[in-house]
Amino acid sequence: MNQSVTRPAVPVKVLRVALLGAGTVGRKVATILLEHADDLAAKAGCRLEVSGIAVRDATKPRAGIDPALLTEDAAGLVANSGADIVIELIGGLSPAKELIVSAIEHGASVITANKALLASHGDEIFAIAERNGVDVYFEAAVAGAIPIVRPLRESLVGDEIRAVMGVVNGTTNYILDKMSTEHQDFNQALAAAQDLGFAEADPTADVEGYDAASKAAILASLAFHSSVPGSAVYREGITDVTPEDIEAAAAMDCVVKPLAIARVDEQGRIEVRVHAAMVPLTHPLAMVHGPNNALVVEAANAGRLMFLGPGAGGSPTASAVTGDLVTVARNRVRGVVGPAHSLYQALATAPMGQTRTRYYLRFKVADQPGVLAAVAGILARHEVSVHSIRQTPTANGDDPATARVSMMTHIARESDVAACLGELENSGFVIGPVRLVRAEGV
Amino acid sequence: MNQSVTRPAVPVKVLRVALLGAGTVGRKVATILLEHADDLAAKAGCRLEVSGIAVRDATKPRAGIDPALLTEDAAGLVANSGADIVIELIGGLSPAKELIVSAIEHGASVITANKALLASHGDEIFAIAERNGVDVYFEAAVAGAIPIVRPLRESLVGDEIRAVMGVVNGTTNYILDKMSTEHQDFNQALAAAQDLGFAEADPTADVEGYDAASKAAILASLAFHSSVPGSAVYREGITDVTPEDIEAAAAMDCVVKPLAIARVDEQGRIEVRVHAAMVPLTHPLAMVHGPNNALVVEAANAGRLMFLGPGAGGSPTASAVTGDLVTVARNRVRGVVGPAHSLYQALATAPMGQTRTRYYLRFKVADQPGVLAAVAGILARHEVSVHSIRQTPTANGDDPATARVSMMTHIARESDVAACLGELENSGFVIGPVRLVRAEGV
Repeated sequence: MNQSVTRPAVPVKVLRVALLGAGTVGRKVATILLEHADDLAAKAGCRLEVSGIAVRDATKPRAGIDPALLTEDAAGLVANSGADIVIELIGGLSPAKELIVSAIEHGASVITANKALLASHGDEIFAIAERNGVDVYFEAAVAGAIPIVRPLRESLVGDEIRAVMGVVNGTTNYILDKMSTEHQDFNQALAAAQDLGFAEADPTADVEGYDAASKAAILASLAFHSSVPGSAVYREGITDVTPEDIEAAAAMDCVVKPLAIARVDEQGRIEVRVHAAMVPLTHPLAMVHGPNNALVVEAANAGRLMFLGPGAGGSPTASAVTGDLVTVARNRVRGVVGPAHSLYQALATAPMGQTRTRYYLRFKVADQPGVLAAVAGILARHEVSVHSIRQTPTANGDDPATARVSMMTHIARESDVAACLGELENSGFVIGPVRLVRAEGV
Repeated sequence: MNQSVTRPAVPVKVLRVALLGAGTVGRKVATILLEHADDLAAKAGCRLEVSGIAVRDATKPRAGIDPALLTEDAAGLVANSGADIVIELIGGLSPAKELIVSAIEHGASVITANKALLASHGDEIFAIAERNGVDVYFEAAVAGAIPIVRPLRESLVGDEIRAVMGVVNGTTNYILDKMSTEHQDFNQALAAAQDLGFAEADPTADVEGYDAASKAAILASLAFHSSVPGSAVYREGITDVTPEDIEAAAAMDCVVKPLAIARVDEQGRIEVRVHAAMVPLTHPLAMVHGPNNALVVEAANAGRLMFLGPGAGGSPTASAVTGDLVTVARNRVRGVVGPAHSLYQALATAPMGQTRTRYYLRFKVADQPGVLAAVAGILARHEVSVHSIRQTPTANGDDPATARVSMMTHIARESDVAACLGELENSGFVIGPVRLVRAEGV
């Protein structure tokens, strides 16, 4: 039909792009830039020329990349190559921060996937960018290829966002998914994730929730137009999730998911936290499997939206980076910048003790008259209302006899539940620790 | 934490917004503009002032809206109110098109939810807008509140999109969902949809696929940077979907969904079509229930992404409109326009006969020796390969005996399958018509 239409003349304006880092993502971005140059030019309205790629070892050969582009002098590349756009993919706080600030001060726009840096120094970096009239884009920093930064910053900007909740770490989702579907314990599932490259040799950043906490901070800041540093995020890892938790969830038609939650509470404060939680099987997040990520956004007018897709990996992350690259290039060709970092609502974060959600509790008790009444009394005194409770004799025929109590509360306040836990553990009739798993989306 | 931060000074720049239409969506947009003026000003960097609202009957009172804003003279409002931004929510081709063109020629940017107009005259309208240096934004035209236009136009612009497939019409999804879950027939389910306001008194635009075809054209044009008019979309309604189809799908662990599909085929042509199709229960689109919409985007690097949410309704649509409004206002404050309509790939659309997918076929045969061999022979001659086949005696003890044959093909070409249908129906041993339902995502 349109076969007679000629392709538009290739734009002549050229922007120079410096790439910091040539790991999995960096190499893929470089490949896209080199192999799809004409397409990107048609989309951006200018040609994108790689001015250099900073790597740790420039002598190492890299397939498809001209060795002349490689340099070990990242600071020099940023300062002296005349880059219009700097793509930071080295991660970590330093020297990433110094390089980004230098790029901005040299007049370059910046694209970064560095969630840890944005969560700890985002406000400062955005302020420097604004003073220098350049863009800092970071779609790849949260949930890989899933478009979430632009939807929050632009598509939903006319709405009032109430909550953003999701699976933002593919490693922990893979592990908990494996525990649920294949009845493995945490260590077995972690080993499987490491074998497949879904978990690092040192899995701390993922399994202890640091990665998810950075992403939660970025999402909360975007959704609520407020400053939310990573340090304000309540964080729990998934290392203490047991097969017994997974079974208990299944018995209640739930599944345990690694969640990041950012929500405005009734007092207009931001609740922001990262922990494993039971989610009903009917909830959209229950069907996020393997290393996928997903985000549910609840807005006053839009209602409940979900975004699902690959949360990590070289190609998906490179997709997000090149999407930003085309946008930043378009902006630069027109001499404008995208929407500024917006903190106008300036909401405070709520202390974790003030969080209100539902709680699953499990503990062992001495099987003697009056115990259940005493448990109920402790809960009632702290205004924690029970939704369902189950007591079963423990299987191993202990002497004296013991029983296992598991319960789900109605919505309660975290500090009240914590007080109950303390009293239960010191009650004399509760044996050992009380296990607590929060329940969301119920 | 930030409670001491003062809210920024309210911006003094004012943009005038004219609203065409005050139906469900228009009233909600007006309410948001009036009630959230300060928030919108902080987000847009300017105040948004309603310059007038064009309605059919200005004497009708409308809660929360100053009657002085109402006018029956839409053309006059566009031409004479000094509007910076015109929001068109009246729908239909005329006078919507003339009003939009007039708005553009008077220097206003335009926001519209008018899928039918964009599918038939989009290229022309975008060209006029580009010549006049104004924006035309239309997030609300496809899938209500679900951000899909910006993700395709910006987030994924650095990637190569291979397919967009989804449920883009909530009415037909509600009807087929009802048929699946409550074993109703089409007319019962349609009546239920009408009772709940999910279907119009005249449901033609929805149940015959016109609405979905317009959206498919818009999505295909965005995804593939090519001109795709609504008339290029292959369109089938859902009125002939029977309880037997639904049951057959269930027996194969599938569900029947109203799909819009836009895909680049192996020859680099755009396949774009709207019809009911069987989808496996494990496919993400299978879990789109009720009046929800969802879109699955497949891109070379991003992989498979899904976007899910309310596809229609006053508030969700108003959310998309106000998101566009803030973006268009930001652009205007800076004196720029957003990304231009991009047709640089100029791909042709493929004729429906060239489509390749899987097909479910069902027909009645005379139960006599050699029939199955004859059926297999017809399929083989047309290179249609059978994935699975089942023959069962018909229940009602016909004399002479008959049997019901149902089968799923492997991927085959539409024109080949159509040729088989013709031969089967004229074979002498096939009794009555052959039922065909396509299968996607298998």
